[in-house]
Amino acid sequence: MAAALTLAERGRGRTAPNPNVGCMIVKDGRVVGRGWTQAGGRPHAEAVALDRAGAAARGATVYVTLEPCAHASPRGPTCSDLLIEAGVARVVAALGDSDPRTDGSGIGRLRDSGVAVDIGVGEAAARRSMAGFLTRRALGRPHVTLKLATSLDGCIARADGESRWITGEAARAHAHLERARHEAILVGRGTYEADAPKLDVRLAGLDNRSPRRVLLTRSLDTVAGLTVVGAPERIADLDGVDHVLVEGGAGAASAFLAADLIDRLLIYRAPILIGGGRPAIGDIGLDRLADAHGRWRLVDQRMLGSDRLEAYERVRD
Amino acid sequence: MAAALTLAERGRGRTAPNPNVGCMIVKDGRVVGRGWTQAGGRPHAEAVALDRAGAAARGATVYVTLEPCAHASPRGPTCSDLLIEAGVARVVAALGDSDPRTDGSGIGRLRDSGVAVDIGVGEAAARRSMAGFLTRRALGRPHVTLKLATSLDGCIARADGESRWITGEAARAHAHLERARHEAILVGRGTYEADAPKLDVRLAGLDNRSPRRVLLTRSLDTVAGLTVVGAPERIADLDGVDHVLVEGGAGAASAFLAADLIDRLLIYRAPILIGGGRPAIGDIGLDRLADAHGRWRLVDQRMLGSDRLEAYERVRD
Repeated sequence: MAAALTLAERGRGRTAPNPNVGCMIVKDGRVVGRGWTQAGGRPHAEAVALDRAGAAARGATVYVTLEPCAHASPRGPTCSDLLIEAGVARVVAALGDSDPRTDGSGIGRLRDSGVAVDIGVGEAAARRSMAGFLTRRALGRPHVTLKLATSLDGCIARADGESRWITGEAARAHAHLERARHEAILVGRGTYEADAPKLDVRLAGLDNRSPRRVLLTRSLDTVAGLTVVGAPERIADLDGVDHVLVEGGAGAASAFLAADLIDRLLIYRAPILIGGGRPAIGDIGLDRLADAHGRWRLVDQRMLGSDRLEAYERVRD
Repeated sequence: MAAALTLAERGRGRTAPNPNVGCMIVKDGRVVGRGWTQAGGRPHAEAVALDRAGAAARGATVYVTLEPCAHASPRGPTCSDLLIEAGVARVVAALGDSDPRTDGSGIGRLRDSGVAVDIGVGEAAARRSMAGFLTRRALGRPHVTLKLATSLDGCIARADGESRWITGEAARAHAHLERARHEAILVGRGTYEADAPKLDVRLAGLDNRSPRRVLLTRSLDTVAGLTVVGAPERIADLDGVDHVLVEGGAGAASAFLAADLIDRLLIYRAPILIGGGRPAIGDIGLDRLADAHGRWRLVDQRMLGSDRLEAYERVRD
């Protein structure tokens, strides 16, 4: 399942409104097929993996990060039917599909046809992997990541605005990779006008993965090449966008935090002190320190050169 | 040597002007004696360990974090003579003692008497362990640690000053343990007047280890129970103080950083966001971002409950 989850990541930010699913088919201890949901949402991961496996899928075990679909579509047959036709022996799925058109009937159809089904293996990781799809389903809006690149003292620039560079090359490359995992990048007006950031993916082989650029501004002006939203909540209206990366500056970050619309924090921290610099975020409406606790859970951490990356998830229980 | 270094930590903050040395005596694979420099600097670690070992020291190997002393003192015989008298077979020392009264003559005396000597084992860790003694020797001032307890966005309080609590119990207990490892704790006038911190060690069994309290202020007033220094550089005058812990607030921290008098950063970070709060440090005289890089090296990190502790050392090459 860990391998299937890794495959699922390849589609992240490209499959909306479909979930980014990963699938691996194993027979006699050997991988015979791998697949992930393709750009635009089709073909599904299972269809790709079955196509690779061919006749070898007969009697095989299929690891898939989401319950195979059971609803017919003009864009292709259902994955449960494809799996039954291919004669697989067993399906291991991380998560049931809450889409009312499937919601257990994919599993039911498989079992009725004599395929063994296990569900719930790696569920927490699968939820994280398909956070965009699940957030859109549950809350009617995209999943939002706030990216901060700070010094040890929490500054994103010197007092005069100098911000190049706080983090090193490895951290900046990682941040570009993160861009490719989102359908949209959002900045505030101040950052746009001060830095005119290109907001593209400058990584070899991924330059065609640059996401849609969104500007948060109360102004009514339009800006060529940018989608304008007037308030954080308005990201719900962005069609085909299940993942938004908020890149800056402090104004946009604070507006999203104050609206409790940040689901994930990505903090790149350089081992430097700035002192009296520009803070990463402004007022977010915190009334008491006690209210700040219990909201963020560390889910990932790693060194990127001499910088440290930490990822936190918003705890919503 | 790792065990001897752990023993050395027990004396840290209590042995000035002597170094906090650790010593372990091993014979036939068994520990026969352990010792560390006692409060006030005497007896030395080797003397304590030899006393414990008794006759078992004959033919044993002695691990010690600093070259045994060779200079006679009214307070006791030299450690090299004690080791020779005890008939040890071998001495492994982490670091030569640069004290001109020893400086190689401890090793020389041992070798002349037929004791095998290795030097340099675990030298980097020993330098860190005896940073107070070595900094006083090299720079004529105590080793200075700056402690910060911040949110993820680098704040040490809300805008209105509320700062209890940012970090959790485990982090606060660790900070009290750190106090016990310093001869003096320093705060600025603002922190003293706003919080009137007790600056003692509130840990069971260590309550007699509360360090001297120092106030950084340009005012000429004296404050009962506190030593007053008028500028960061004046910590050099503090007799019997080889380790200073700067605890707050942003003014004192910035003054010490601007004077390049911070040797070690201890950052306790809670997984919370404050937003628009009080920054950990103010202006430290940084002219360009490029100048901020390469000054701090991560030397330790650990989780304390849900908080994270990171220790950085000032790179001085």
